[in-house]
Amino acid sequence: MLDKVIRVDMAGLTVKEEQLAEAYQRLSGRSLSSRIVFDEIPPYAEPLGPHNKLIVTCGLFAGSMVSSSGRLSIGAKSPLTGGIKESNAGGISAHKMGRLDIRAIVVEGIREDDKWFMLVINKDKAYLEEAGYLINKGTYEKAQLLYNKYGKKIGLALVGPAGEKRLLTAGITNNDPDGAPSRYNGRGGLGAVMGSKHLLAIVLDDAGCRVKGPVRKEEFKEKVKEFHQNLLSTPQTAEIFPKYGTAAMLNVTNSLGALPTRNFSTGRFQGAENINAERLYETIKSRGGEGSTTHSCMPGCIIRCSNVYPDRDGKTLVSPLEYETICLLGSNLDIDDLDAVAKMNYLCNDYGVDTIEVGCAIGVAMEGGVIPFGDGKEAHELMEEVVADTHLGRIIASGSVITGKVFGVRRVPSVKGQGMPGYEPRGLKGTAVTYATSPMGADHTAGNTPRANVKHHLKEGQVAVSRNAQLGVTLVDALGLCMMVGPGLPDRAILADLINARFGWNLTLEDLEKICRDTLNLEKEFNSKAGFTKAHDRLPEHFYEEENPATGTVFDLYEEDLSELVY
Amino acid sequence: MLDKVIRVDMAGLTVKEEQLAEAYQRLSGRSLSSRIVFDEIPPYAEPLGPHNKLIVTCGLFAGSMVSSSGRLSIGAKSPLTGGIKESNAGGISAHKMGRLDIRAIVVEGIREDDKWFMLVINKDKAYLEEAGYLINKGTYEKAQLLYNKYGKKIGLALVGPAGEKRLLTAGITNNDPDGAPSRYNGRGGLGAVMGSKHLLAIVLDDAGCRVKGPVRKEEFKEKVKEFHQNLLSTPQTAEIFPKYGTAAMLNVTNSLGALPTRNFSTGRFQGAENINAERLYETIKSRGGEGSTTHSCMPGCIIRCSNVYPDRDGKTLVSPLEYETICLLGSNLDIDDLDAVAKMNYLCNDYGVDTIEVGCAIGVAMEGGVIPFGDGKEAHELMEEVVADTHLGRIIASGSVITGKVFGVRRVPSVKGQGMPGYEPRGLKGTAVTYATSPMGADHTAGNTPRANVKHHLKEGQVAVSRNAQLGVTLVDALGLCMMVGPGLPDRAILADLINARFGWNLTLEDLEKICRDTLNLEKEFNSKAGFTKAHDRLPEHFYEEENPATGTVFDLYEEDLSELVY
Repeated sequence: MLDKVIRVDMAGLTVKEEQLAEAYQRLSGRSLSSRIVFDEIPPYAEPLGPHNKLIVTCGLFAGSMVSSSGRLSIGAKSPLTGGIKESNAGGISAHKMGRLDIRAIVVEGIREDDKWFMLVINKDKAYLEEAGYLINKGTYEKAQLLYNKYGKKIGLALVGPAGEKRLLTAGITNNDPDGAPSRYNGRGGLGAVMGSKHLLAIVLDDAGCRVKGPVRKEEFKEKVKEFHQNLLSTPQTAEIFPKYGTAAMLNVTNSLGALPTRNFSTGRFQGAENINAERLYETIKSRGGEGSTTHSCMPGCIIRCSNVYPDRDGKTLVSPLEYETICLLGSNLDIDDLDAVAKMNYLCNDYGVDTIEVGCAIGVAMEGGVIPFGDGKEAHELMEEVVADTHLGRIIASGSVITGKVFGVRRVPSVKGQGMPGYEPRGLKGTAVTYATSPMGADHTAGNTPRANVKHHLKEGQVAVSRNAQLGVTLVDALGLCMMVGPGLPDRAILADLINARFGWNLTLEDLEKICRDTLNLEKEFNSKAGFTKAHDRLPEHFYEEENPATGTVFDLYEEDLSELVY
Repeated sequence: MLDKVIRVDMAGLTVKEEQLAEAYQRLSGRSLSSRIVFDEIPPYAEPLGPHNKLIVTCGLFAGSMVSSSGRLSIGAKSPLTGGIKESNAGGISAHKMGRLDIRAIVVEGIREDDKWFMLVINKDKAYLEEAGYLINKGTYEKAQLLYNKYGKKIGLALVGPAGEKRLLTAGITNNDPDGAPSRYNGRGGLGAVMGSKHLLAIVLDDAGCRVKGPVRKEEFKEKVKEFHQNLLSTPQTAEIFPKYGTAAMLNVTNSLGALPTRNFSTGRFQGAENINAERLYETIKSRGGEGSTTHSCMPGCIIRCSNVYPDRDGKTLVSPLEYETICLLGSNLDIDDLDAVAKMNYLCNDYGVDTIEVGCAIGVAMEGGVIPFGDGKEAHELMEEVVADTHLGRIIASGSVITGKVFGVRRVPSVKGQGMPGYEPRGLKGTAVTYATSPMGADHTAGNTPRANVKHHLKEGQVAVSRNAQLGVTLVDALGLCMMVGPGLPDRAILADLINARFGWNLTLEDLEKICRDTLNLEKEFNSKAGFTKAHDRLPEHFYEEENPATGTVFDLYEEDLSELVY
């Protein structure tokens, strides 16, 4: 089951089907993408050059009806960080991959001519097709053109104009069950890697596929039921996430003093109540129309933390509107207007860029005096410059670090070249330890700690808390699960039970945990070979020296503290 | 003699005079600037932040009449490379420092307000003076305003608008004996460091200074005479450099296939005869007027490799017009027009940017399709965008690596973030080894090998040749000597003799060579602590894989070869 690998060479325009290597049998999602990156990509490879590869993987439950199990992991050497990258997304593509019985798609080579392609995979074959007509079209239009051609039920992973232009904020986006291509493998500039290969889209057409049943059918059914019951009986996964979605985090971080505000200069936002989960919920509710406070981004997800955010007339402005975007394009820019955030979010989605990195870059540009903080209109115009591909737009679309360098700004909230997501590091030191030490660069999905039982402003215990979070999230990433299941997992041994029932194996939770440690250590080793040292495992200087006014604290975990973090 | 250190704190606006530390007594120029960088700047310091320092040093012969001994070394942590940087320049400032009996100026702290200063040093005191009226003025106008205020005989080290804006290509420029502020500490973005400190100029007023005589007067006089006679009896230093200047290199590199052409895509330029030394010489000669084929950039230099390049009416277009600029703004852009190069050179000088880095960046922009190769008019307009500080101009003024990232270009000729100078690495592999291994990043002044007795297209012997060149140039850099003296030094022991006679010491050449090895090793160690590894000691990928069409060779010295290079 799930033992096919599709290998595509964009230079030679060949597509091969291979058998998954024996050594990779237990790997999926991040554990598989990172392993293939480690095994196949030279650490010195130029990220936009011929030796980088794009590795697309699904998890071991892909294609099944296990809730929240359809994350699509994409790996490569990141053009943004220069290190290894895994970025995963919701949507329906991983589910389709599972139904097509494919564990990984490996895309090799680059093209420097003017020919562009898409990779089409159906039950009979996998092939490349010329796709020049999709060039320079937004992701929503691209998706529509592909639905017209292949039907509405296909899974899609595609890039927008940003990826075609190899911009460092470019992501890869996947469609949701309603056809909206807005589920982003956002971080690390993976869209630029796909663009360098002149691959515009992967079309996953599972029509006629018959998915193999689980090896131990009854056991699997029972374990799925238990897993779902856990999700349905846990307050976060059963009530808070479905009602408020990821935005539920905003009151938590704001009260902690960890809500990034005005280019991460403080952690508490005066306008928080205008952009928090309650306001989001009420706005959607009161506007009605196409709006929805709850929504599944993948087939069969029972958490349904997503939403559809409508305008005053009830017409969809964007779906979803998530916590990270609300922070980075909201509080981080001193903008307390959900409509303004939603409109910028849509532009990001359509152009194909990561809202976190772009939000960080705009914050840095504001610090550099390019436009003022707090001006939603000017921020929107700046986003329009990104979409119009002006030179200023290109700077922003090259991410926070480049924006800082171009405008001579020294306070750039980034680690290893990647902008920070929605957690102010001096106000939430466990997540900050993750920012500093994760092979991924600043990334909340690499190990977030706001719910850890620790005093978030103090240094004590943060290394252990971050390590646990990093290992924990690697476990869900390695199985293609959404990290939102976390609170609904009283005993993670059920994950081994589910795998064993589906595949007829006898893995233990310890086996899975070993896979996670191995994955993190491989990632670290890749980075080490690519030129990363402990000098890169730290936050920007100003976070150690300037207090977060909301907490009165600086970041105070130093090299000697952080070096204790081993996986 | 030369035992004062001026220490300036730009945050507290204090200026102190200190005694040179005992441990630094034998150090000057690069050996002193790099030592102070190593001892005083934390390797993790944000280059534009409060912990970086600007270290200005002269050489042990500064203030004397030893020919070609007035190079000014400036050190810091580079905002361009993130590593240690020493960049030295001609002009009169080091000579003035010598006459003021100052070995080093250490500038600490930054300012983030709107106050700008200059540091004035005369025989009685050193002090900061408000200099807001100089803001946003070109270097030529700034210099004129300072001459108006302090007289025409002052030495100057100053930044242009580029430094004020903290742009990564910003240099620091020094005036020549004719008052032109066009002698650049160009590389590594040191002007941005000076700009971050809100220090616009250092004014060195030596009026009334009486220079201490050499300790062993007769011996010194005799050794100076011998040194000068060597220079005057060596063909390069006596004839070729005075007549043709640095441009004499162009025929050498072009015939080797090592003249950077069209963004380093090849090493031979069809239009070479329109920009070579003979054409330069004849153009200056035939135009007459203010033009001059030979010119001293420092008082008392008998090599006089500089020039004054006039327009058709005999009016100065720029002085000097040097080999590196002719390459990077000429052949590298496929432009075979000296007037076009000279005009861009002037714009660079006035705005305060490094012609090498800007030339590299424009080459990369041409590769990215921003403007076509070979179009002098468009290249000039692009330079005008730099000066006008448009967003496109800012991208170019942020250097080759950022230009490459913003425009999605993978063939960026740089090492450690710094663009390559006028030597194509596959055509001149010794210099390429220097590019790869020097702590300075891609830099011909760190160890150039076109005159080494080796087959430049083959890998054999290049590590030894580069090592010798790196040690050799460190010796002249460590003494404030110009590297153009190299051919006129049949026995380098004379350098120890000169020092001993001036200072009354008993150093041997071996002592000096140990200082050079120590300097290079300290620089490497600083970089290592700052996060550099062997992964950074290499050329961009494409130089290993794509042939230089002029030589049919790729760069083929790998990690195992380069790791043999120890100082």
